[in-house]
Amino acid sequence: MLKKGLLGQVIQHLCCLPGVGPKTAQRMAFQLLQRNRDNAKALAEILLKALAEIGHCQQCRTLTEQTLCEICADPARELALLCVVESPADVWTVEQATVFKGRYFVLHGHLSPLDGIGPDELGLDALEQILAKGEVKELILATNSTLEGNATAYFIGELAVKHKVQASRLASGVPMGGELEFIDRVTLLHAFKGRRNIE
Amino acid sequence: MLKKGLLGQVIQHLCCLPGVGPKTAQRMAFQLLQRNRDNAKALAEILLKALAEIGHCQQCRTLTEQTLCEICADPARELALLCVVESPADVWTVEQATVFKGRYFVLHGHLSPLDGIGPDELGLDALEQILAKGEVKELILATNSTLEGNATAYFIGELAVKHKVQASRLASGVPMGGELEFIDRVTLLHAFKGRRNIE
Repeated sequence: MLKKGLLGQVIQHLCCLPGVGPKTAQRMAFQLLQRNRDNAKALAEILLKALAEIGHCQQCRTLTEQTLCEICADPARELALLCVVESPADVWTVEQATVFKGRYFVLHGHLSPLDGIGPDELGLDALEQILAKGEVKELILATNSTLEGNATAYFIGELAVKHKVQASRLASGVPMGGELEFIDRVTLLHAFKGRRNIE
Repeated sequence: MLKKGLLGQVIQHLCCLPGVGPKTAQRMAFQLLQRNRDNAKALAEILLKALAEIGHCQQCRTLTEQTLCEICADPARELALLCVVESPADVWTVEQATVFKGRYFVLHGHLSPLDGIGPDELGLDALEQILAKGEVKELILATNSTLEGNATAYFIGELAVKHKVQASRLASGVPMGGELEFIDRVTLLHAFKGRRNIE
């Protein structure tokens, strides 16, 4: 009975956030409506603004409110390196973790014929246009290391060959801090295959 | 650099939610702006509506968008039982857990003279008016079992005595499923003091 009303609706909609169940949503709702009203208002308003204004970068297809995202608009970024990722979140992850100074191309998914996601949905025609310009020297395929991610990387690798661009794939292996005992067989196989000489 | 822009602002405001750090906020923002835009819009709109319309129940001071909350407006609720809790969240917790059929009074905090929170801030004058009507026969003091919660319960207990209303406090003891080995000393002391004969 109590779940009706505006408060109930707020809780219900908070439940759609990743990792938020009814109990957490309830705690969030009370915090937003009682202790933190100013921030709650700001959050709702900025969310509406973002939904209205944020679209895809014309060049790399990541999320941005401008025509070109900050990375594509940055003249200091190398044109010769292009990193292909599955989602805008991956762009952030790579930016935060590495010293990559090239540009990105966001697929917004991976090849999945059963779901009707083919090359057109991933914007591979736009990617081919970029490759055809001849500025890109290396295409880094940073799709996820899953069955679908690998298949997508393989498919895009063929495009790179067609346009005579060097394609590379992120290394597979034992994660830093990982113990051999707990590594799965396939990862260990890749780690052995990709072993490097100590200099 | 990437943290600027609308997306960065959305993430920053999501961080204010309880239990949400930068990493979770980022995941939430991408989900809201990419996969779940309809719900994101609904969430923002319902939050603004709730902030504008939800106020305090005139009688019990819990959160509601009406003059009287659903519980106070429900004629089936017993007038003789009044449960005093610290927050509207506690009302929900008691409603979900028990078969309590009386009404509530929400303090919105506990006595805390150092923070300038005295009887007036907790609405104890309104509580006294309710007690003075003579309808309430038992006042259940369900403030938290903390130092401040106990002090507040004690203070309100004095009010009850003044108005010749029976006051009671929730039982302290071993939680269901709890093992003696892991119970703190004070709780165990209360559990011993409050032991009950088996019938």
